[in-house]
Parts: sequence; structure tokens; C-alpha cells
Amino acid sequence: MSEKIKPRTLPGFMELLPNEQILFNKMKDTIQKSYEKYGFLPLNTPIIESADILLAKAGGETEKQIYKFQKGDNDLALRFDLTVPLAKYVTQYYDKLTFPFKRYQIGKVYRGEKAQRGRYREFYQCDIDIIGNGKLSIINDAEIPSVIYNTFKELGFDDFTICINNRKILNGLFISLNLEEESAGILRTIDKIDKIGIDKVKEELLRDVESDKVETIIKFIMIDGDNENKIKDLENLEVDNEIFQQGLEELRQVTKYIKIFGVPEENFKIDLTIARGLDYYTGTVYETFLNKYRNLGSVCSGGRYDNLTEYYTDRKMPGVGISIGLSRLFFQLEDNNIINAENESISDVLVISMADEYEMCAEVATKLRNEGLNVQINIEEQKLGKKFKGADKLNVKYVIIIGEEEVKNKVVSLKNMKTGEQQTVTIEEIVDKIK
Amino acid sequence: MSEKIKPRTLPGFMELLPNEQILFNKMKDTIQKSYEKYGFLPLNTPIIESADILLAKAGGETEKQIYKFQKGDNDLALRFDLTVPLAKYVTQYYDKLTFPFKRYQIGKVYRGEKAQRGRYREFYQCDIDIIGNGKLSIINDAEIPSVIYNTFKELGFDDFTICINNRKILNGLFISLNLEEESAGILRTIDKIDKIGIDKVKEELLRDVESDKVETIIKFIMIDGDNENKIKDLENLEVDNEIFQQGLEELRQVTKYIKIFGVPEENFKIDLTIARGLDYYTGTVYETFLNKYRNLGSVCSGGRYDNLTEYYTDRKMPGVGISIGLSRLFFQLEDNNIINAENESISDVLVISMADEYEMCAEVATKLRNEGLNVQINIEEQKLGKKFKGADKLNVKYVIIIGEEEVKNKVVSLKNMKTGEQQTVTIEEIVDKIK
Repeated sequence: MSEKIKPRTLPGFMELLPNEQILFNKMKDTIQKSYEKYGFLPLNTPIIESADILLAKAGGETEKQIYKFQKGDNDLALRFDLTVPLAKYVTQYYDKLTFPFKRYQIGKVYRGEKAQRGRYREFYQCDIDIIGNGKLSIINDAEIPSVIYNTFKELGFDDFTICINNRKILNGLFISLNLEEESAGILRTIDKIDKIGIDKVKEELLRDVESDKVETIIKFIMIDGDNENKIKDLENLEVDNEIFQQGLEELRQVTKYIKIFGVPEENFKIDLTIARGLDYYTGTVYETFLNKYRNLGSVCSGGRYDNLTEYYTDRKMPGVGISIGLSRLFFQLEDNNIINAENESISDVLVISMADEYEMCAEVATKLRNEGLNVQINIEEQKLGKKFKGADKLNVKYVIIIGEEEVKNKVVSLKNMKTGEQQTVTIEEIVDKIK
Repeated sequence: MSEKIKPRTLPGFMELLPNEQILFNKMKDTIQKSYEKYGFLPLNTPIIESADILLAKAGGETEKQIYKFQKGDNDLALRFDLTVPLAKYVTQYYDKLTFPFKRYQIGKVYRGEKAQRGRYREFYQCDIDIIGNGKLSIINDAEIPSVIYNTFKELGFDDFTICINNRKILNGLFISLNLEEESAGILRTIDKIDKIGIDKVKEELLRDVESDKVETIIKFIMIDGDNENKIKDLENLEVDNEIFQQGLEELRQVTKYIKIFGVPEENFKIDLTIARGLDYYTGTVYETFLNKYRNLGSVCSGGRYDNLTEYYTDRKMPGVGISIGLSRLFFQLEDNNIINAENESISDVLVISMADEYEMCAEVATKLRNEGLNVQINIEEQKLGKKFKGADKLNVKYVIIIGEEEVKNKVVSLKNMKTGEQQTVTIEEIVDKIK
């Protein structure tokens, strides 16, 4: 063997060091536990599906970005989200599921995007969805922010805002102004408000839209104040459109129930400028921001859709859900020093042998493991200094040293790695000393 | 939308119902916790790698079975095991790792095998490996069975046997008999002993091998009794070969330390007929059998290898590890009624609304969630019978019913689904009643 292949990881594919992986897994577990607290059932659909299944709806970007290939005679593809596999699943196993069907799925998805720093081609999505059979109560739309709230609290965040809007309000407004066809362009312009300011937005709108209609739009996006206030101002707009009024009523319900579901006032707000794309969501929409790091963009988004399964069945399946893009979020949090994996550890104790006899090592490690501790041993021929360097890297709390002297006297040296304190204890005493 | 695509899952791809998925996840978590107890660090390498990285060593079956495709100008492939990605990882991040490097990885791998019942093309492997830098103490080979023992105990099994052998013993024996080149064929014949019996094995061997050599081989595979006995008999064979004697010494050490690492005598035994393929393992080899279900084959296998990373670096990296093929194991256990997912559940409580008012539902659910319970709500317009049918399917322990009467009197009806007992309690009392 002389010709070696250079080991490397593909660009856009996350590969973490062990301490980072420990932290990543902790976050993943936290999200999972939070989802389970709300009764979402786990699913784990295949990463590979028939290409026609995954591309039933696709077009545009998806079609370009999807990983497609042949194996034998089959056209296969890698899932690019967890929603399409859910639509497939719900249709396929319809008779075996209980509706409303609540499921979570945490798994990798694949998109051949242009490689950019912090953008991944393989990344984790952590999704929940509630799927109704024919109908789905609006109260579910109010429970979802409670899941977001609980999840980010459990992840260790306090200062975040869940922003809520209802697409029907925007759609109804445009219909009432007879601006349906221009709505995409108008939304794009409105979206720039943070960057260019209200006056420039107005100026841009006036190019294509009559001035009295621009006035209404500006009045709409200028609606401010607390949630109650915003709802009152929306009522005062007196938009004569059923869809608008329906959206407003839904927003009223959602805002009311969010509180009952335990989300504090300071963690959610109505944001009438949120639209989240144009053709998918049909009612409530969500975005979530870490207030001190608003530049990260939304860290958890989603919304209500009318029909999940239209490409597979005539049955109508409305749903509401959210997704956390964990790989990207993890990268952003680490990159901004909001989280730090340096001190993460799996093992509580490292047992180091410095003698030619290993029975005591095995005995001590086994004893501690039986007490529920995570224990690693190092019985390799290495100098003590090197073994301690390893202990530092592993971030263990305790090191147990067993050398010739210890073996002779049937004791061990126990070092607390935080305090540096070292003491000699008998095997019987170890568990108590460590616990 | 009229033309619908038939939802389906590719053959060879496992897709579970929610209650099965709950059980599958429990088993996966149990394995993970057991691996962590022994200080193994988590890794999560990409599923897609450059084809040349994954195929560095491959040939034969792997080359045929691997999922390969192009994206842009890149030749990509899906990992077919977790060992090759580990070899890549250890070489790539060598400077940042602590040796001996202990890692676990639990993830999906891909092999385009012929589809058969219970054989998967996408399946979970749960691997641990200990990688040495240049050298690796034989004591590690004795710790691995302790991980197997702990893992299967935690999975709920008692009656299983970890079978251990050392490839050097077989290799040394064949060298001493000048039968190196015939060894593959001889091993294949020996392998049939369970099926065709010792006499037929002898008959077959005599076709190609001289009778005195056959006598020695038969004497070898007839070695029986307890572990101590077997080692004595191996000594008594007086094989004049260094490799044989080295293997015997390793086996002696492993057998001695396995006990100290807490594995009871009844759960492991030396089995001199285990070889585990021909070109990969170089020392200790393991197979694990559920004694009542020996027909399932080995449920956890592995061994010692001389050099993990030879295709990527000149550095020598010996290792020892095992793998549990969880997808196949799960299928087998379910198929043989050894496990049953019927009663698996995520939610402790289902809150059912039978009124037009949902505030109490949201309030009660939130209260119970804050107490650490998993709670699902059903506020859809469905009949009570349908909602209870759903509760049965979800296997919840308690159902809380909130109808018009309950809302009026500010109480709830609490039904214990096991006993069928139903009582009226105030909101304040619920937590205590359930806990």
C-alpha cells in the first residue's frame, strides 16, 4: 500500500469534532423531548424515495437542487424536506393512523445548494406537524407557539420572540384592493422595510399601484402597538372582504389561546409583515427570532396549510407545523459564540493505569459503571503526562490513577480535575467520594 | 389536481408505524446510553461522501452494492458501513483526537442488496470502536464483551452468549499444518458442522487434506468443555507456531479480563469455530447469540483489526469494535414475537374536549406539561366514541374529558384507561390524581 487517498469531507456537509457532537446531540435530544411533551409521535421515513414521489409537487429550485440518481431501473432521490415524506406517509398509512395525527421527525435532508459558509447540503430538520382529517381546529395553531416556546426555553434561551401572522389577512387585503396579481411584487417591496425604510417602500409601491391603495397598504403595515392594539387597528381598517375577516378572526383566536397555552406576552407578537413564501401556507404563519441576534434570521418557522396530501389523494388533509433547521442553527450559535462546546464531555471518570497489572482498573471501572457513571479507561503504554493531557481533552471530572504503589496497597489515587485536589482512597470508598 | 401519484415506500426500506417507531427509538436510545457508559464519544459523519473515499478499499460485493451517483462534477456515494467513514475521520482529524480514540456511531447505511424479507437496503448500524495510535492493548478486547453484555442486559435480554475466538489461533494452526492456501475452503467446511455433523465434515476435509492433518483439525474443532478446559486443550495441542501461541495468549488474557469487567461466566464462551470472514479481522473475534433464538444468527459481531486507516495514511491504527445491525434485529425480534410494539405510547394523558369552549383544555394540558407529563389534546369536532378510540390507539394511561357540564362546574372527568375507573376532579386536584 503506497498510494493513499486524501481523507476529506465534501463541502456543505457538516462533520463535527466529538465535543461539538456531544453538544449537538444534547440540543437534538432537548428538541425531541419537547416535541414528545406535546404528544407528537416519532416517525423515521427513509432518506431515499422514488423520485416521482418526492417530485410530485416540485418544480423550480427543488427540481434543480434535489439529489437524483438511478439504481438498477429505479429513479431514486434523496428527500429534500420532511414534509413531502409526511404527505406520502399519511396517505399510505391513512387507515392505521389516528387523526388529528401529530408527528415529529428529526432527520437529515439533502439539497444541492451552492456551497456557502453556514449553508449545508446535508442538514438536520426537526419538524412537527398536526394533520387533520378533512378539518383541523384553529386551536392547534395556538398550541404550536407553545411548543416553540417550550423548546427554546429548554434549549436555554429566554429572550426570543415568536412572530405570528395570518396569510388570509394579507390575501384578503390584496383581493379587496383588486391587487391579487401584483401581490408577490408588493410583498417583496414590503419585505425591504427593515433595510430601506417606510418612505422608500412607499415610493416603490407608487410606481405600480394607485395612490389610494398605497395609502391603505401603508396604513396596514404601519399598524403597531401591542397585540390587542394591532387587532383593534385591523378591525378599524374595515376591509370589506370575507377572507380578510376570516384571517382576522383566526388571528384573534390564536392570540387568545397562545396565552392559555402558557406563552408569556413578551415571547410572542403579531407581525403583519410576515408572509413566508407565496404558495404554500394558507393561514397562520410563524417565525421566531432570538432578539439579541435578529441577524441570524428566523430560527423556527412554519404555518398552516390547507392540503398536505393533494398530490397523492383526493382526501383533504389540512395541517399546521413548524421546523427547526438544527444544523444551520448549531453553526450560527457556535459561530456567534452563543454556545460553546469546549467543555462538553461524555465520561465522568477516566481510569488511568500506570502499572503492568490491569485487574484493579477493570474492577474499579466496572464498579463505577454499575453505579451509573460513564467511565473510560486508559491502559495503554503512555506516559502519565500524556494520559492527563487526554483527560483534559475529554473534560472528565475525575481521574483515577492506579500505579504500582496503588496496586500493592489496594488503593487508588483520585484526582478532582476541577479543584486539582488529589487523595488516596480505597476501592470501597471510591463511589461515595465521587458521588 | 386529478392525477395522483400512488404513495409507496421502496422495497428494502424500513418504515414503521408510530408505536413501532417508539419501541425502535427506545432500543436505539438504550444502545446509545450503554455505549456512553463505557466512555465512547458520539460521531455523526455524513451519509454522502466522495466515491473514491468510500471505495478506497472496496471491491467485489461492496462495489456492486454501493449507491453511487453524480452531482455536478462530483462522484458521490452513500456510506455502506460506519467503519470506512471512521477510518477517514481518524486520519483527517488525527491531530485533534485523543488516543486511544473511542467512538460510537449510530446511523443509517446503504447497500443495494437483493431485496429479501428482513434484509434492508437502508438500515441502522450501531457501532463502537476503540482505535489505538500505533498500538492498542489487548485489555480493550476484553472490555468490548462487557459493552455487549451491558447493552443486551439493558435491552431486556438475559439468556444470550457472547462467543469469542482469536483469528491468530486458526491462522497459526493452518500455517503449522502448511495449509494456509486451503484455509478458506477448510473454514467453509468447518462452518457446516451444525448442519451436517462432524463425520461428514471429516469426510469432506479428507478429499483435499492429508489424513494426519485432518486428525489435528478435527481434534481442534472437537475441543470442548468450559473456557478453562478449552484453553488447556489448546495448550495440549502443542502447536509449534508463534502466531498460534500469540493468539492463545491473547485469548487467555481476554478470557481472564472479561470476568473482571463484570461479564458472568454463563454469558460468554470460547468458540473456536468462529472466523467472521477472511480478510478483515486479525485477532479477537466476537459473535453474540440469543440462546433461545440461535436461528436469528449473531445479533452483535466484531473483532480486532491491525490497521484501520491503511488506505489513507502510513500511520498504523489498530482497533477493535463491534456492530449491532439494529434494523434487522428489530425486524427479527418483532417477527418472532420476542418484542411487541402494540402498547407503546408517547403521551401519558389525552385531554378531550366535548364542549365549544377550549380554554379549560388548554389550561389543563399546560398545567400537566409543566409537571413533566406528555400530554396530547383533541379539540376536533368528533364524537366521544371516536375520540376514545383514538385514545386507545395512542395507548394513553389517562383521558381527561371536558364537556359542557365540566366547563360549567369547573371540573374535569378523569378516566384511568387501565382500570376503566372514572372520577370527577377539580383542576387543582388533577396533577396529584395522575401522579
